[in-house]
Amino acid sequence: MQLTLLPFFQPKGVVIIGTSTSPEKLGYGVTRNLIQSGYKGAIHLVAQKSGEVFGKKIHTSLQEIPDPVELAILIIPTQVTPQAIEDCGRRGIQAAVIVSAGFREAGEEGAKLEQECIKVAQKHGVRLLGPNCIGTIDTHSPLDTTFLQPPMPEQGGIGFISHSGAFAAAIIDWARGQGFGFSRIVSLGNQADVNETDMLPMLSNDISTKVIVMYMESISNGKRFVQTASEITKHKPVIALKVGRFEAGQKAAASHTGALAASDTAFDAAFEKAGVLRAETAEQMFDWARALENCPLPKGNKIGILTNAGGPGVIAADSLEHHGLVLAQLADTTLQALSAILPPAANIHNPVDMLASASPSQYAECLNILLQDKGVDGVMVILPPPPMFKAEEVAKTVNEVVSKFEKPVVIALMGLTLVEDARNKFQEMLIPTYPFPERAASALAVLVKRALHDRRPTMDDGFLVNGLSSIVGLSTDELMQTYGIPAAPIKLAHDEYEAIQIANEFGYPVVMKIASPDIFHKSDVGGVLLNLKDAQSVSAGFIQMVKNIATLFPPIRIDGVHIQRQIPEGQEVIVGMVRDPQFGPLMMFGSGGVEVEGLKDVAFALGPLEQAEAEGMMRKTWAGRKLKGFRSIPPVDEEAVKDVLIKLSQLAKDHEEIKEIEINPLRVLAKGAVAVDVRIKFDARAPTIDRGLPSVVE
Amino acid sequence: MQLTLLPFFQPKGVVIIGTSTSPEKLGYGVTRNLIQSGYKGAIHLVAQKSGEVFGKKIHTSLQEIPDPVELAILIIPTQVTPQAIEDCGRRGIQAAVIVSAGFREAGEEGAKLEQECIKVAQKHGVRLLGPNCIGTIDTHSPLDTTFLQPPMPEQGGIGFISHSGAFAAAIIDWARGQGFGFSRIVSLGNQADVNETDMLPMLSNDISTKVIVMYMESISNGKRFVQTASEITKHKPVIALKVGRFEAGQKAAASHTGALAASDTAFDAAFEKAGVLRAETAEQMFDWARALENCPLPKGNKIGILTNAGGPGVIAADSLEHHGLVLAQLADTTLQALSAILPPAANIHNPVDMLASASPSQYAECLNILLQDKGVDGVMVILPPPPMFKAEEVAKTVNEVVSKFEKPVVIALMGLTLVEDARNKFQEMLIPTYPFPERAASALAVLVKRALHDRRPTMDDGFLVNGLSSIVGLSTDELMQTYGIPAAPIKLAHDEYEAIQIANEFGYPVVMKIASPDIFHKSDVGGVLLNLKDAQSVSAGFIQMVKNIATLFPPIRIDGVHIQRQIPEGQEVIVGMVRDPQFGPLMMFGSGGVEVEGLKDVAFALGPLEQAEAEGMMRKTWAGRKLKGFRSIPPVDEEAVKDVLIKLSQLAKDHEEIKEIEINPLRVLAKGAVAVDVRIKFDARAPTIDRGLPSVVE
Repeated sequence: MQLTLLPFFQPKGVVIIGTSTSPEKLGYGVTRNLIQSGYKGAIHLVAQKSGEVFGKKIHTSLQEIPDPVELAILIIPTQVTPQAIEDCGRRGIQAAVIVSAGFREAGEEGAKLEQECIKVAQKHGVRLLGPNCIGTIDTHSPLDTTFLQPPMPEQGGIGFISHSGAFAAAIIDWARGQGFGFSRIVSLGNQADVNETDMLPMLSNDISTKVIVMYMESISNGKRFVQTASEITKHKPVIALKVGRFEAGQKAAASHTGALAASDTAFDAAFEKAGVLRAETAEQMFDWARALENCPLPKGNKIGILTNAGGPGVIAADSLEHHGLVLAQLADTTLQALSAILPPAANIHNPVDMLASASPSQYAECLNILLQDKGVDGVMVILPPPPMFKAEEVAKTVNEVVSKFEKPVVIALMGLTLVEDARNKFQEMLIPTYPFPERAASALAVLVKRALHDRRPTMDDGFLVNGLSSIVGLSTDELMQTYGIPAAPIKLAHDEYEAIQIANEFGYPVVMKIASPDIFHKSDVGGVLLNLKDAQSVSAGFIQMVKNIATLFPPIRIDGVHIQRQIPEGQEVIVGMVRDPQFGPLMMFGSGGVEVEGLKDVAFALGPLEQAEAEGMMRKTWAGRKLKGFRSIPPVDEEAVKDVLIKLSQLAKDHEEIKEIEINPLRVLAKGAVAVDVRIKFDARAPTIDRGLPSVVE
Repeated sequence: MQLTLLPFFQPKGVVIIGTSTSPEKLGYGVTRNLIQSGYKGAIHLVAQKSGEVFGKKIHTSLQEIPDPVELAILIIPTQVTPQAIEDCGRRGIQAAVIVSAGFREAGEEGAKLEQECIKVAQKHGVRLLGPNCIGTIDTHSPLDTTFLQPPMPEQGGIGFISHSGAFAAAIIDWARGQGFGFSRIVSLGNQADVNETDMLPMLSNDISTKVIVMYMESISNGKRFVQTASEITKHKPVIALKVGRFEAGQKAAASHTGALAASDTAFDAAFEKAGVLRAETAEQMFDWARALENCPLPKGNKIGILTNAGGPGVIAADSLEHHGLVLAQLADTTLQALSAILPPAANIHNPVDMLASASPSQYAECLNILLQDKGVDGVMVILPPPPMFKAEEVAKTVNEVVSKFEKPVVIALMGLTLVEDARNKFQEMLIPTYPFPERAASALAVLVKRALHDRRPTMDDGFLVNGLSSIVGLSTDELMQTYGIPAAPIKLAHDEYEAIQIANEFGYPVVMKIASPDIFHKSDVGGVLLNLKDAQSVSAGFIQMVKNIATLFPPIRIDGVHIQRQIPEGQEVIVGMVRDPQFGPLMMFGSGGVEVEGLKDVAFALGPLEQAEAEGMMRKTWAGRKLKGFRSIPPVDEEAVKDVLIKLSQLAKDHEEIKEIEINPLRVLAKGAVAVDVRIKFDARAPTIDRGLPSVVE
């Protein structure tokens, strides 16, 4: 089914199956909205009973309808829906919106009916939207297939995909007072067929859509979403509000990586990889969308603040810094120009405070001066009700200045009735206004973030390592070796004599670790001995360790003791991977050792990792920043860590049978890095390989 | 000056000095507002020229005005303001609002005039509000001394203190659309006399004020603020928006504690100690205020969600969890009652989703059932425009239920025009509404926080230790000893022979640390040697250390080497104090060692510490939580750490000459804790004492 979904927005001819003459029925609402929307094609109505509504004839059969008809809207009982789809298919209609509820969400019987709908639709190549949805809106086409209370939303550049019809309906009503409009809106309902990822290109390819916002409750196919969204975000911003962040119930995980990767971590990583901006709240999503829709992107993160009052200026400065933006240092010429205009008591340094007496022309002139400063990448204008002037006069003069520059300007327009006319004036000129400086700062921050994304280097696809087609039969160290991850040999001793023999072969000092598939955290049970300097210690250590553990945990299986040569001192980090069921390999990096779950100094990213992504993970954690050295802690080999991260992500990509893999610690030396302990968890069928690795690699 | 400030809100007689007949003058605006406010006392007008305005006679001298007059509002040129205050004082008027700007904020000359005003006012016992302020409003009195555009704000229970007139003006206008009113409002201006702390009791003692909100740019006297606010928050909630959080420029600090205590940390600690709720944004401050004004406090943090749509329910659940609240587990009887009312496809578990068909009576009945459940401490009702009903009908039925229970209910009322009548209905019943579930969740969270504050145990004043009147002449270990902080003796060796002698006396192994007033971080320069096991190592170590450091850092002063007995293994934490210029001793606790500034696993609280506060600091950090033991890390003596924290805070309280003090590490053992290294920084006049302390205390 590679059919285009365009008929959901720009159909040539629409038929409403299940129209109604009763105003309280949904079929009536859909008919009313479609007609009032100003849809330019033919509108056909079908119902069980013939008649007339809105001056249009109601047919009793799809056969009576003349061509062309590309979209059907079905508001009929669930039981007859499969037949109606069948009819559509036969009639050559390849797009249908099923508005009715009562399918999968209503129980077993409904689920069966939904399956039947899908089967019929697939047979005829009909694409289905819904069921249990409120349909689509295209304000430019125009088209309104919903039953929502009129009027239709204002025209605008925001394309909106929603997993919740109720959320979409509330937002459409709320938007009326916020001064923004939409290009296309789609409510997905049960997603029996068409899902959020399918719809993305329909907004991406729409020239009226400047920015895409998504309300998401789930994801249909994680990898496909990341792939599709990655392509789209190259040329159009996408913002997501993903709900269901917090989920009760802890997952059982065999590794620190697994335990630390909350259910939502993978979504964060996926959005980051795909360049999707993740909003925290619904209000924030639309605050961002309005800025991205209307403002040019800034060249940097240096922001000027222009205000007529000190207090809001400080709020703005706080908020900018909170969002990682920087107060622009104004050039000397800028300061001179400002001081020529402003009274002596004004503050000509950023935030520029013109004082309460600021006139419309002072606002305009100062803004002009700020925007001319090469060190200013964007400006927040703060406009509480000016005591001596009308806010709308300020809006008028400010508007003229903004249009002359290719720099973003957002307005913190504080108040309500006294700034109402000003708000309308700004809206006419598509300059975003926010009721408080904090929200204006958040909008500027998203512009900077988006600008950085635009300048992101293109992806490198080459990896240094060739994958293996199979890892069956390989030991953990052979696997590491194949992927170029340094991990010196390790050997299993079955008794104390063998232990001495191996230790003699490696050279002293050595490390001993209990070998048992039942023990996840060896040091917790006294299963690790360090710095054994001679044969006698090795022998004694072996006997002691095996005896103790066997006594303390009688049902445990002990295979013997692993012997490794002791690695030189260095910094210790953790590098791990847990396979997310939706998105695939989720990589982790951070402070290693036994405290990893307590310290939580870790960062995640979706694999396979690029250089920049691996570097990003390192920058986000103290463990990563510390690699450069800190106080008396000497610097170690950062590149080696990055290398291991990338190679491990490649290994994870190549071998889907690996569910979790964790190197803890990875000992980072002055030159190189060595996997000291590696744990791999395979699919349920395969047993957990749990082996201490390592040795010297100097 | 112990005079009451009541005349600023409920004066017996007001005189406006500087009234005007010109509508563009502030004096005209003040006169108009005072008259229109409905103020019940006598209003007198004074100006240079006699005449009439608003049907009232304008006098040319204060002498002509009959008694009683308790408040003067001055809108006159700066130069004549001191004389006017003099006149007021002589006339027995003891409260004056100076509206005019052009004083301290305008430069040197203005500052002089402001000083003169203060002098004259003090002479006559006149309290001054301003200058450069917009005055006061009391909606219940009623009284309006501002020049702001009418109408006056609605009556309500929010008392509002603002350091910014522009912010106050914008908020007053904005509030008109938010459905809340004010009790008293005060704009503080330059605070030549009356400041934010002075005004707090005026709102605290006002029965119409249910909650106090403060917009703060600074604080006049930190300790007095904490003391005053602590008393007030015992019976009335106070919310602060403190701006100027982020300040450029790093402070020079001699300790980790000093470096980590950002300029704003002390405010966080001060608000926490005083029980003041700190809001992040202006919108949040008023979202919280509306809930605190109108809702009963919950008994716990278990919240029920009632919705007619799944999506917003998930948003709500996310947000509640984000704020540390818990989704209530519904009782079996509750589930049964819900399923008796709701259709089979509805979700009777929390969040309770009644489906889109939910009727007004279903809303009411389900809410009633939820509120009856003993396991539900409060409810968020989510109301997007119901497809089949009018939102205002739901509001009506919900209102009736809410009034029957002593549990908080907040409404996420999503949409705009379709829910407008519903919003008005909820407002009439003083049930707070929020446009999105996220903001409703934040409001519920603040109710829980406030409820916890109400149940906070009363402060214990007794400390275990008696302070010292002077610490002159005491060594660091004597000082620690006096306050009962275990720190075994340490001795200074001037040469290697003395070093051996001391080590022999202490017993081996010993630790050696360079003794130099110029070195802050000894381990950074190789100034620490551990585990010296015999006389020979001590001798060699001494020579090596002194030689190395003297060679590497030639201008440094080396007093010799400190010898300590080596302490047994344990967990290491940092305990520190930095004296905040505003609030006094700011205590720090967290992960110690050399990485403290990188890990940032630290918590702050304002001293002197109570038991509960010390425990709170420990709970907030991984270092504190780890004391109970973690995996293979054995538990250590938590009580000993708490004891040191409290005693150190007592020491800091007793000795204001100490600016910074830091124990890093404090080694925590199975029983007891030992200060291994203590650094004290005195006032500029006194030299830094920098000595390694410790030894065994077992």
